[in-house]
Order: sequence, then structure tokens, then C-alpha cells
Amino acid sequence: MSPSLATFADALAGVVGAPNLRRDPDACWPYGYDNSRRHALPALVAHPADHNEVREAIRLCNRFGLPLVARGAGTGTAGAAVPPEGGLVLALDRLNRILQVDPANRLMVVEPGVTNRAVQEAAREHGFFWPPDPTSSDVCTVGGNLACNAAGPRAVKYGTPRENTLALRLITGSGDEMRVGVHTTKGVVGYDLTRLMIGSEGTLGVITEAVLRLTPLPEAKHTLRGIYRDIGAAARAVSAIMGQPVTPCALELMDRRALELVRDRAGASLPADAGALLMIEVDGAAACVDHAAEAVAAAARVDGALQVELAKTPAEVAELWQVRRALSPALRNAAPKKINEDVVVPVSRMPELIAGLEEMGRHHRIDIVNFGHAGNGNIHVNLLFDPEQGDAASRAERCLGDLFDLVLQLEGTLSGEHGIGLVKRDFVASEIGPEALALMHALKSVFDPNGLLNPGKKLPLG
Amino acid sequence: MSPSLATFADALAGVVGAPNLRRDPDACWPYGYDNSRRHALPALVAHPADHNEVREAIRLCNRFGLPLVARGAGTGTAGAAVPPEGGLVLALDRLNRILQVDPANRLMVVEPGVTNRAVQEAAREHGFFWPPDPTSSDVCTVGGNLACNAAGPRAVKYGTPRENTLALRLITGSGDEMRVGVHTTKGVVGYDLTRLMIGSEGTLGVITEAVLRLTPLPEAKHTLRGIYRDIGAAARAVSAIMGQPVTPCALELMDRRALELVRDRAGASLPADAGALLMIEVDGAAACVDHAAEAVAAAARVDGALQVELAKTPAEVAELWQVRRALSPALRNAAPKKINEDVVVPVSRMPELIAGLEEMGRHHRIDIVNFGHAGNGNIHVNLLFDPEQGDAASRAERCLGDLFDLVLQLEGTLSGEHGIGLVKRDFVASEIGPEALALMHALKSVFDPNGLLNPGKKLPLG
Repeated sequence: MSPSLATFADALAGVVGAPNLRRDPDACWPYGYDNSRRHALPALVAHPADHNEVREAIRLCNRFGLPLVARGAGTGTAGAAVPPEGGLVLALDRLNRILQVDPANRLMVVEPGVTNRAVQEAAREHGFFWPPDPTSSDVCTVGGNLACNAAGPRAVKYGTPRENTLALRLITGSGDEMRVGVHTTKGVVGYDLTRLMIGSEGTLGVITEAVLRLTPLPEAKHTLRGIYRDIGAAARAVSAIMGQPVTPCALELMDRRALELVRDRAGASLPADAGALLMIEVDGAAACVDHAAEAVAAAARVDGALQVELAKTPAEVAELWQVRRALSPALRNAAPKKINEDVVVPVSRMPELIAGLEEMGRHHRIDIVNFGHAGNGNIHVNLLFDPEQGDAASRAERCLGDLFDLVLQLEGTLSGEHGIGLVKRDFVASEIGPEALALMHALKSVFDPNGLLNPGKKLPLG
Repeated sequence: MSPSLATFADALAGVVGAPNLRRDPDACWPYGYDNSRRHALPALVAHPADHNEVREAIRLCNRFGLPLVARGAGTGTAGAAVPPEGGLVLALDRLNRILQVDPANRLMVVEPGVTNRAVQEAAREHGFFWPPDPTSSDVCTVGGNLACNAAGPRAVKYGTPRENTLALRLITGSGDEMRVGVHTTKGVVGYDLTRLMIGSEGTLGVITEAVLRLTPLPEAKHTLRGIYRDIGAAARAVSAIMGQPVTPCALELMDRRALELVRDRAGASLPADAGALLMIEVDGAAACVDHAAEAVAAAARVDGALQVELAKTPAEVAELWQVRRALSPALRNAAPKKINEDVVVPVSRMPELIAGLEEMGRHHRIDIVNFGHAGNGNIHVNLLFDPEQGDAASRAERCLGDLFDLVLQLEGTLSGEHGIGLVKRDFVASEIGPEALALMHALKSVFDPNGLLNPGKKLPLG
């Protein structure tokens, strides 16, 4: 450890307390990765206790010129939480208090280290929930959800963190502290810094408190499953469902290749000629949800639908989900390496996307499996290959480039919820024009004049 | 006209065409005001035809150092559209095309000069609507709605422009052009400049195209009216309504003084001891809306409710609305001068707000009438007085200062939808701290380095 780093570490220990500062590389090691599987070793990991300690830590970083990253649970898949090599990790696990649950005003005030699950449990006691529901919701933190604008299946009806967060307390890269946003569902005083912060992946500021907007728990939920001859028919069903007044609270797609992967595990219920599958959930008042489910089922019965089933019992619900549930374990074992993208296209363009992917898979000889949040047009594209096998890795890379080109042709976007991090950083300039990018870099400099906050993430390298 | 202004005008005429440039002060005069009743005479008014002409006009302004404001219909009440004295008005009435209606993807692409009403009509043909519904929706423009984040009654269920806009095309103050946002309901590539632009009152850029997110039209709507002994009971009803799963699509309040004003016009249906009134609308699928309305009615029947009625026929709907409809004409004639604020507080704090207002009215001897969007806690506070009468104007000013202090104490915000413009500019610093304000000024400088875009609006003077 260099003398100046040691001085910094001692000063930081004075802020967070010596037991809350990790200096040993072995102790720091686990804080160097996230679910992108990338890794960089931080010099130090601090566990501040509260807003003030975060602020002082950031001010120290400015004094010493040390880069830092704020860290939740490290469940992100794009590398946004991978620290700057030799920098500081601010692990926010001690900022895990629920400060206020205010059902009368449909809001909840939390610190960033609280898990999504804990938020849901605290809200449920009062008859509410917070809509964002990433797959990792048992362990991921609200701070990470906000940093990445992480959503999940419910977003199709209830929106992403941007639509479900009212206000933030934060510290900028220069160590300034502020509250932005309002405690109400309307507010137009000042610029909307709340949404600017959300999805900025820790590059503009560190969130130390969030006012979450709560939604009343629906009384009842129904589950439907539609099986289609081909992806075109499934996409038409998605458009038909989204074109009628009942918006489902989940509208999940599996393509033909995904169905093939799970056929063995899926039980007898999957017809041999199934080319695509939709899992649909409809929620609402108990007295209305039957009708709502019928309306969605009617919309789902487009030409090319092989069966559209509505579960009547919990056992039937479990049976309908069996096919979808079999997918994740099947994918894990399908190939030594998997690139998992989360591109988005307008729902009407999904057939073009999937057709293009089939063509790309053949051309680049890559096994491609698609599933995802069809109601938002948010498709998880999985490229499966064995990197040990000849030029498979470079073929997969080229395939990925073609995928991104196609997505942009279809007026889509490169990431719906996983974020940019390190992994997609070099593709951002293909979606965002040079003038907007220059503006974003300039905004970053306003929040973080010394460039210390999560450098090299979110935006292409200047 | 100074030689350099004349040179500028000739160059601008070359961009927009001479017939689309007003130089005569009499012709420019009507473009100097908005519904705040403030006025400043612009030197020139240009009517550009499209994005490219707007861009070239802004670049010319940069070359000559001339400030400018983009203008919709001038219906704003806070002075955001009042031009910089001696500057340029970019009247966007010719950018009034609906470029695309895409029901399959629930979106619509429009130019900023199209009226809110035209948007609704084009959407309705496909079974959709765009939620923002300011009172001026017949004439106000989408560009103005976005600039001010203007909402209306439906926001309680369907959100404001920030929740209902996917992407923008814009030109910054320095004349850079860009597209921001996505054509989909999810997207995390780059920073969220879309919401940063929305509500920025033309101080960051000029919007030349917007991708609006559409919502399916509900099949049916029911109207309810609750009459309460006092505002406390009405506020409890609002919290009870917002705490159950059916969110109404309008939840409008009138206080005791508002009821007194309309008693003569309101017909016999208003009980003598009415202390507050709620107008409630519930929409949804035809088969569900009866049940939904019953659920809301049950929640509305709190202790202190005098009557909660559900209209069964169009005639009954009209009768229930009669009291509310009588308010606007009554207010117009109630006093020579009216200050109309649109503060917001968390819904549970509304009784404290109204009690405080009653006290302020007595203390400052100002007649105060309150109504508004109770579901959002967004209360239109009307201070009525005769400025010719002694020190009434200065008493009203002091009363306004007390009101804003109280709103902030109650964790509220100074404006829910009217915006800041010129009128509330000097109060912003009481809500937003100095560090956040300095950041906002710095962001403004990034978008508009020469300070030409609507100078002196939205933020306190630097």
C-alpha cells in the first residue's frame, strides 16, 4: 500500500471506524466482482453507517483523487458494480434501514442497502408493494435497483423504478449533499434530477435515501398460458393484448428454441408443434379479475394460437408455470458459455427481431435462445456457445454486433433493464448520437468534476 | 431596430421565410404575454416550419447573442412563455403535425405545436388516449404540456407527462440537435434526458418532436360525489380511497369556502352543513366498473361523510358535476384580483394545509378558496382580494409567503403542475437547497452555455 493510500485509509478508518474498513486484498477480493463475472481488485472496501459517513468518504476521495464505486448486492450483470482497479468500494450494506412506511401517502422512505425483498415485506404489511421486481429481488438492494433502473415482469403494468420513485437524497461526486424530488406524485419545482439519477449506475452521485412510491396490492391474480404456432402469432397476441384496456401484470415470452430446451422437463402439456409460448398474469379486484382474465384470454386467441389456458386452481397455476420455470436450469447447462442480452424493440417489431436472430444463429453458427418481457418488447437474447471450440467466441461477438445493429434498425434499444456497466459500454455510441453523448459527458462532469464516481461505466470512454 | 438586430432579422427571414417573421411591434405584441397576465415585448416573432428551421434559428441566436423563448398557445399561468424583453419568440404553431399513430406499440409521434385536443382525437380513433389533461386541453399544445409537465385530474391514476412520454427530439441552447429516450417502455442506455427536459420550461432545449406513450381508453366511467362535514373528513376519505386497490381517474376536492361561493348556483342538492366535497371518477372495463365504483364509494364513506352518491344516468352525472362546474364562473366574479396557486402536500397533510389556510385568511384578512386534485394532494389555493382596497395587495403577498412556508413544513412542493416561470421564481430557493440549485444552474449552462434559452425562468436568478 502506497504511503498516500495508507494515509487515505487511515483517514477513512476515522470516518467509518476501523472495523468497517477492509484493507486486506483477500478481504477486498469478493467486492471486486458482480454478476457480469468481471473482476477488478479494489484497494479498500468501506462499510459506512449512514449518509454522513458516505459524504465524508466521498470528500476524502476527492482530497486524495481516489476513484470509488457504491455497491449493493453485486447482482447486476453488466459490470456496473465492478470497482475501479485500486479504488474504493463503498459497500452500502449497513445503510439498510426502512426509515418510514407511510401508507396514507402511498410512500416509503428507505436507505439504499435495504433489499428489494425487505421493501416488499414491509409494504405488504400495509397492503402495498413496490413494483420493481428483478429476478434477484430476494437479495438485490433498492440502491442497485435505482442505479440500474432495474425492473422485471411487473413493469409492463406498473412501470420501472423511474415511475415508482418520488425523491432521493444523494451525494454528488464532488461531495455535495442534496435532496431532489418531492414527497408527492406531482411536482415541477426545479429540474427532474430524480430520474436523471435513476439508471445512472453510480456515475453521477451516491443515493443515501430514497422515497419510494407504493402501489396497493391487487386482491387477486389469474394466470394464463398461450401456446402459439410461431413467434409471429405470439407477437400478434402481445399486440392484441396490449391494445385492449386490461393491461396484464406479466406478459412473458419463450421462443421455439427456449421451448425445445425445456421439452424434456416440461411435462406432457406442451404440444409438439409449439413455436412460442406466452405466460400471462392478470391482477385486480377479486370481483373483476375473472372478467379481466377473460378479456386478456380473448385478445390472446389470435390466428395461430394453439391453446390459451386459464389456470383455475393453484395446482393448475403451478402446471402452467412448469415450462417457464424449467428454462433457467436448462439454460445453465445448455452450453459452457452464455451471453445474456436484454435488448428491447417495439412490440410489433418482435417477429422481425426473432426472425433476424434465427438467421444470425444460422449464419454465425451460434445457438440462440430467446425469452423475456414481451409486453415491453424486452427480450433476453441468450447466445450459447463453447468458447473452447474453434472460433466460437469471435463468432458470438460478431453475432452480438449484428444483433445490436438489428435492434437499432427496429427502433429498439440495447438494454431494457440490465444496464450498460462495462459490458455494453462500447456499444452505446451506436445508439446515442455524438451530440447527446457529449452532453451526457458534460453532465457527468457537473456532478463529478474529478471523475471519481464509477469511472469508465455507463458511457463510452471520453 | 438596431443595425445588428436588423441583420439578425434578415438572416432569420432567410431561414423561416419573410412571411413567417413578424417585425412590427404591434404584430409582436400578442406574443408577449401568457395566462400569467405578465407581458414583455419581443423584438421578433418567427414561425418556423420544422425541426431544421428551429435549429437554424437557435444557431442564429447564438451568433447574434439574442435570447429566445419557444411558445405554444401561451396558456401557462406562471409566465414561462413570457418572452425575454427584446428577444425572439419561436412560435411553434406550424410544427403541428401528427407524424405517426402506432396503436400496436401504444405510441404516437407528434410535433410540439399540435394541441392536446388533436392528440386525444387522433388517439381516440385507435381506442387510446394520452393521459395529460390540463383544463386548457382544447387549445394548449403538447410542447407546452411537456415544457411545464402539465397534468390535470387524470394524473392521479395515469400520471403526468413524465410518465407518458417515451422520447424527444430537441435542439439545445447551443444549437446541437439530438434524439433522447426510446420508442419502448423500457430503456437504460445513457442518462434520462427525456424527463430532465420535461418540466424544464424551455430553459434547456426546444423540443421539436415527441414520442408520446398512449393508454387504452377505458370502456366505461362512473361518477361519484361525496359530501363531508369538514375538510378533515374529506381528507380521510381521500386517504381511504388511495389506500385501496381501485385508483380513481379523478379525485377532486372543493373546500367549505368554495362551496359557499357556489351555493346559490349549485341547486338544492348541496346540504346546508356541507364542509367539503369530493368529485370522484372511476373508470375501467364495462363489466368491472360497477364493482370498482362500489369499492371507491365504500372507502369514501368515512366518519363525517354526509352523503356519497353514485350517478346512475347521464342526467345524474350532470347533476353531480353541477356544484363543481359552478365554481369557475363564481371565482371569476368573486373579487377583482385572484392569485391562483397550485401547491402540493402529501394527501394525509391536507387537513393541516386547509386549517392553516383558514387561519392565514383570518390573520391577513384575505378570502381564500381551495379546490383541486386531492388524489395527488395538489390544491389550487385562490387568494381573492381587491388590490385597490388599502393594503390588500401586500397582505395577499404576505399570506402567499406564509402559505409557501406551511407547504414546505408539510413536506409539500410549491407547484404541482403550473410551473415556476417568472411568477414563482423567487420562491424556488425556499424549497430547493443551495447545492442542488447550483447544480441545476450548472446543468442549464451545459445545455445552454450562452444563456439564451428563456433566461430568467424556472430557476432563481444566478
